[in-house]
Amino acid sequence: MTNFVPTPTVPAPDIVRCAYMEIVVTDLARSRAFYVDVLGLHVTEEDENNIYLRSLEEFIHHNLVLRKGPVAAVAAFAYRVKSPAEVDAAEAYYRELGCRVERRKDGFTKGIGDSVRVEDPLGFPYEFFYEAEHVERLTQRYDLYSAGELVRLDHFNQVTPDVPKGRAYLEDLGFRVSEDIKDSDGVTYAAWMHRKQTVHDTALTGGNGPRMHHVAFATHEKHNIIQICDKLGALRISDRIERGPGRHGVSNAFYLYILDPDGHRIEIYTQDYYTGDPDNPTITWDVHDNQRRDWWGNPVVPSWYTEASLVLDLDGNPQPVIEREEKSEMAVTVGADGFSYTRKPDDAAAGKDPVGFKLGAQV
Amino acid sequence: MTNFVPTPTVPAPDIVRCAYMEIVVTDLARSRAFYVDVLGLHVTEEDENNIYLRSLEEFIHHNLVLRKGPVAAVAAFAYRVKSPAEVDAAEAYYRELGCRVERRKDGFTKGIGDSVRVEDPLGFPYEFFYEAEHVERLTQRYDLYSAGELVRLDHFNQVTPDVPKGRAYLEDLGFRVSEDIKDSDGVTYAAWMHRKQTVHDTALTGGNGPRMHHVAFATHEKHNIIQICDKLGALRISDRIERGPGRHGVSNAFYLYILDPDGHRIEIYTQDYYTGDPDNPTITWDVHDNQRRDWWGNPVVPSWYTEASLVLDLDGNPQPVIEREEKSEMAVTVGADGFSYTRKPDDAAAGKDPVGFKLGAQV
Amino acid sequence: MTNFVPTPTVPAPDIVRCAYMEIVVTDLARSRAFYVDVLGLHVTEEDENNIYLRSLEEFIHHNLVLRKGPVAAVAAFAYRVKSPAEVDAAEAYYRELGCRVERRKDGFTKGIGDSVRVEDPLGFPYEFFYEAEHVERLTQRYDLYSAGELVRLDHFNQVTPDVPKGRAYLEDLGFRVSEDIKDSDGVTYAAWMHRKQTVHDTALTGGNGPRMHHVAFATHEKHNIIQICDKLGALRISDRIERGPGRHGVSNAFYLYILDPDGHRIEIYTQDYYTGDPDNPTITWDVHDNQRRDWWGNPVVPSWYTEASLVLDLDGNPQPVIEREEKSEMAVTVGADGFSYTRKPDDAAAGKDPVGFKLGAQV
Amino acid sequence: MTNFVPTPTVPAPDIVRCAYMEIVVTDLARSRAFYVDVLGLHVTEEDENNIYLRSLEEFIHHNLVLRKGPVAAVAAFAYRVKSPAEVDAAEAYYRELGCRVERRKDGFTKGIGDSVRVEDPLGFPYEFFYEAEHVERLTQRYDLYSAGELVRLDHFNQVTPDVPKGRAYLEDLGFRVSEDIKDSDGVTYAAWMHRKQTVHDTALTGGNGPRMHHVAFATHEKHNIIQICDKLGALRISDRIERGPGRHGVSNAFYLYILDPDGHRIEIYTQDYYTGDPDNPTITWDVHDNQRRDWWGNPVVPSWYTEASLVLDLDGNPQPVIEREEKSEMAVTVGADGFSYTRKPDDAAAGKDPVGFKLGAQV
Repeated sequence: MTNFVPTPTVPAPDIVRCAYMEIVVTDLARSRAFYVDVLGLHVTEEDENNIYLRSLEEFIHHNLVLRKGPVAAVAAFAYRVKSPAEVDAAEAYYRELGCRVERRKDGFTKGIGDSVRVEDPLGFPYEFFYEAEHVERLTQRYDLYSAGELVRLDHFNQVTPDVPKGRAYLEDLGFRVSEDIKDSDGVTYAAWMHRKQTVHDTALTGGNGPRMHHVAFATHEKHNIIQICDKLGALRISDRIERGPGRHGVSNAFYLYILDPDGHRIEIYTQDYYTGDPDNPTITWDVHDNQRRDWWGNPVVPSWYTEASLVLDLDGNPQPVIEREEKSEMAVTVGADGFSYTRKPDDAAAGKDPVGFKLGAQV
Repeated sequence: MTNFVPTPTVPAPDIVRCAYMEIVVTDLARSRAFYVDVLGLHVTEEDENNIYLRSLEEFIHHNLVLRKGPVAAVAAFAYRVKSPAEVDAAEAYYRELGCRVERRKDGFTKGIGDSVRVEDPLGFPYEFFYEAEHVERLTQRYDLYSAGELVRLDHFNQVTPDVPKGRAYLEDLGFRVSEDIKDSDGVTYAAWMHRKQTVHDTALTGGNGPRMHHVAFATHEKHNIIQICDKLGALRISDRIERGPGRHGVSNAFYLYILDPDGHRIEIYTQDYYTGDPDNPTITWDVHDNQRRDWWGNPVVPSWYTEASLVLDLDGNPQPVIEREEKSEMAVTVGADGFSYTRKPDDAAAGKDPVGFKLGAQV
Repeated sequence: MTNFVPTPTVPAPDIVRCAYMEIVVTDLARSRAFYVDVLGLHVTEEDENNIYLRSLEEFIHHNLVLRKGPVAAVAAFAYRVKSPAEVDAAEAYYRELGCRVERRKDGFTKGIGDSVRVEDPLGFPYEFFYEAEHVERLTQRYDLYSAGELVRLDHFNQVTPDVPKGRAYLEDLGFRVSEDIKDSDGVTYAAWMHRKQTVHDTALTGGNGPRMHHVAFATHEKHNIIQICDKLGALRISDRIERGPGRHGVSNAFYLYILDPDGHRIEIYTQDYYTGDPDNPTITWDVHDNQRRDWWGNPVVPSWYTEASLVLDLDGNPQPVIEREEKSEMAVTVGADGFSYTRKPDDAAAGKDPVGFKLGAQV
Repeated sequence: MTNFVPTPTVPAPDIVRCAYMEIVVTDLARSRAFYVDVLGLHVTEEDENNIYLRSLEEFIHHNLVLRKGPVAAVAAFAYRVKSPAEVDAAEAYYRELGCRVERRKDGFTKGIGDSVRVEDPLGFPYEFFYEAEHVERLTQRYDLYSAGELVRLDHFNQVTPDVPKGRAYLEDLGFRVSEDIKDSDGVTYAAWMHRKQTVHDTALTGGNGPRMHHVAFATHEKHNIIQICDKLGALRISDRIERGPGRHGVSNAFYLYILDPDGHRIEIYTQDYYTGDPDNPTITWDVHDNQRRDWWGNPVVPSWYTEASLVLDLDGNPQPVIEREEKSEMAVTVGADGFSYTRKPDDAAAGKDPVGFKLGAQV
């Protein structure tokens, strides 16, 4: 039975958006080659152990920190809050929740000021900060614009065993749900949650966790994503393309999933939709709808369901991974069971086609 | 042992380009819904039994004829020749080859004049014509331009058991090879052959044949192809997407394969390259190169290798299908044998990565 | 001397975004042909005197109301507020300002509930509402997706004589400035102001006013805007293209300005940037920077500076137009005075090129 | 009265395509910065006095030679012929025409073998060659693919006083006319002529000549051209954009005209149409059709009509420029005379709109 996180009595911090992720990589030069030379992220600053990267249209110091370390993992999911006082609010909030909390007036990374990091109730290392060094926003530096340019950090995605529990916790924290995947038994498989006016700042994917599923960067147009695939092909590292490109059912975005040298998953993402109205309609997808994860019905590869990155506690040790107890999306949708559909049965009855299902048993 | 087609002593007809395909469909209304309402081809003319369709930039009567019939099959692969006299040349050429030949001064389909149809040495129904009714070229009719607009017939693709035999026959007929797929034992798996200045007017795919693998239409840009996928999703017929979208290794084109209501395969294709120079370099791909069919290493679905449309003889009966005797591309590349590679072994040795291979065992 | 609008003591209403514009058109059928047949906006509802239109991704009843009337003008700039209570807040706010205010529990247009309309201190008819009928959001209806699809209402643009006065008033109302155009004498020529997380919900353009400069709809990608031009060409109404397409300096968006049958100006717009952070950097452009209005230095046509639509008071009569007293952007930048530059003088001094200026004296 | 070039009795050389242009530039470093750093052409080879450049998909040594010299001019318009023997044919052809002819077995530029250069009857330095060094075709080098990548040399454009004379001469040489611009008095203002299967390999623009109007490179998609504009803006050299981007009426291509440091005009061009059929319909545009040069009716800047590059004789001296005697396109279409139209007068009569004409008097 789900053991929900209590709702604190103090107000939640006012979160603006997902702002950066800090990841530990095992070979800094190799990761630099991937993120800078292949993906074209812009180096704000770097030293022997850290590289601070930002997307084209970012004006704060970084969206991604690569930190050299022995075990590939995620050190922080960092959110920007609305004012310096909201960092205090975050600290108070998590203290009331009984979480382990660490406050650093000078920040945990370069370019970021007063911050609080917590081990949150789901086991994730969350950070909240307001102060950030402003750097050149490269928006109109078309002299630097590559054919596959990444222009914005879009969202995080977290794997957690109990999605309803995580969702309620994040709703308390001020996130709103834009879309989710459920079944007729009431099982929730995933939920997308936002603060800024897009489909999400983070999403919860049901599975063994806490783990980081992916971090996503946005491009301007679809051809930019295709170019990234083409470039990976030219470099003969197309095996780093894990899934896609495709069109998501959930979010409607055009997407691609690739794997960095440590297996950290990066999504490239473009053109979801505006969610800023208070009554923005929440979309619930049936887990058996074959177009929910890929609007074209292309199969999801198993690794996408099973693989994810470890996350660290505040001492830098990997958090233990707890198994999901509820049904797994992969188990209920993939394979010969025929549970998924392209058309709803009654559409099919009315029309000419049988219930369609593009079986992905491709090899 | 290959039994090559003899080279005629009379000159080959001077072929300009692939011009149209006539296909038999079992439910004309259903096929009309697919080709006109979904794909947006333009109806030049139609009656109870036939629909004549053209792409946006075509100025002759049609690129595709849908003919109602009991068995889904292909009735003709039609090429346009350079002048009326070249129809005579075609007739003489195939008569010398001992093929069955039929000449019709008024054409086999509406909108086309004096034509010759043959049962060619590989068993395919080939047509050659010059005279064609000119119709409005819709190039600048942007008021009719749909988001997934098909602008040109690009090529045919034929399945034949013996690719070297077919290739030699087509070279005699004046086609030039732009690309092919081979292995180190000298087996040829496929060849791309052109008359116009693109990668192909037709291709030979090694397999049980004669059968029609696909017919391809071109779009202007990549997003047009993505829109076709999105529309199939919106109509809840995404199970008609068989493979793609993706980037071909061979031809470098961006592609998509879809299936019409009878299972005839249609490719949507854009941005291959100019091949008009006499010494245009022929590209040979290793059958074990995992990027040859999809530059991003995405797996080819088995149905794409095994399924194809029957072709008709001049009496309208399906040609018997002969089995390929040589190794099949699917057998040598798909599965757990590890024969395919993303990087060449020595690149891998020199570099950091092992020989990569994105196993498509997805379900 | 500027006579600033006093800041009310009651809180400003919490505005979410620009939501719809109501315009009066003189020939409803002709306007329908333009907005529905040419531009492809979706009809939610229509009757003899009104057409309610929405963009693809909208879920409230409409983004544009065409109302039949004797004089082409704008009847309302309507903003959505965060809750029903904020309509009360709006009413109180404008009553304290001494503005004429009208409250209608059933709304001023179909599909919208409790609303307040005001004659604001700058003379514009502003509306505030929360209640709105939800309609089908067509986001994934790719079967309806046209090649030039308009997906979102993006912003309004208002002509007003005194930009600093208008800006201070809108800042009091909770808008934040993303960009502006000034000169070294401190004259402000224009300002862009937002509530949602884009560059603007409305902008102020210095000139004779109150008048409506334009209303803007967003597309997904740049090619969608090009298609709109191509279609206007195909329909032989290319003279409705007033300016563009081009890349804005301000906002960085790709843009096009067209004129409806009454001369109301519509902008088509794509790909500005995220402005949701509290310290989003404000960009000030020099009025003499030749790339501020068009990043490529293409000249602004004079009509774009001088023409605009009348706005109505709450009785439906056109508001009188007051002349701007300060310098006009057109006068200081267009012509032979050589005040504008492509490169700053010192860049030019250091480099090889003289101060560039692409004189638009083209005919 | 037109004095036509006689038709030789010997056969014309069989020309494959326009292949490269050799231009003289006055500051090699400055031109290198423009063509290599800004436009991204690929350097095959370079020395103190010459830079040999090619587009992404080219497999012969170069498409453009920059040669250092005292006077900016064009040294050669070079065409590739079908075989070595066709160089002999070219020599014989021009000798019979009485032209000055120079044959060099080792070519006039690096990377090209046996060639003939002529001062042709219109005064242009034409070159014909077959032998060319093959270099790496970069088609799939997406690791080198810039956001504004130039993929192919598309065509030349020549200014000549007497278009019918030039057209007849080029038709004798084997070119076919795809489109032209005329008026009702029978004056020809321009003609587009092709050997390869696109709209042109060269075009004749009526005006004072012989001069080179422009040389054009193709991109894959429209956004690539927009990126070039954006980059010129970022580099603060937007004054090098002379005209566009826009959609041509003639050719239907999406286009942009820019000026190199010496004022040589470069077109960037994409998506014209297939012209390979022997009866490809020729399109004649009325000179008063306001959409012929720009499908959106945007005005042509006067410099585009009046400015062009000198061409050299075989001694390297500029050819004298002869004035056009017939009416100039600029004079008959630009200005207040109202001769141009957007809609034909009878369409306008039938419909609601007066004859439209977007006057370009923009400043």
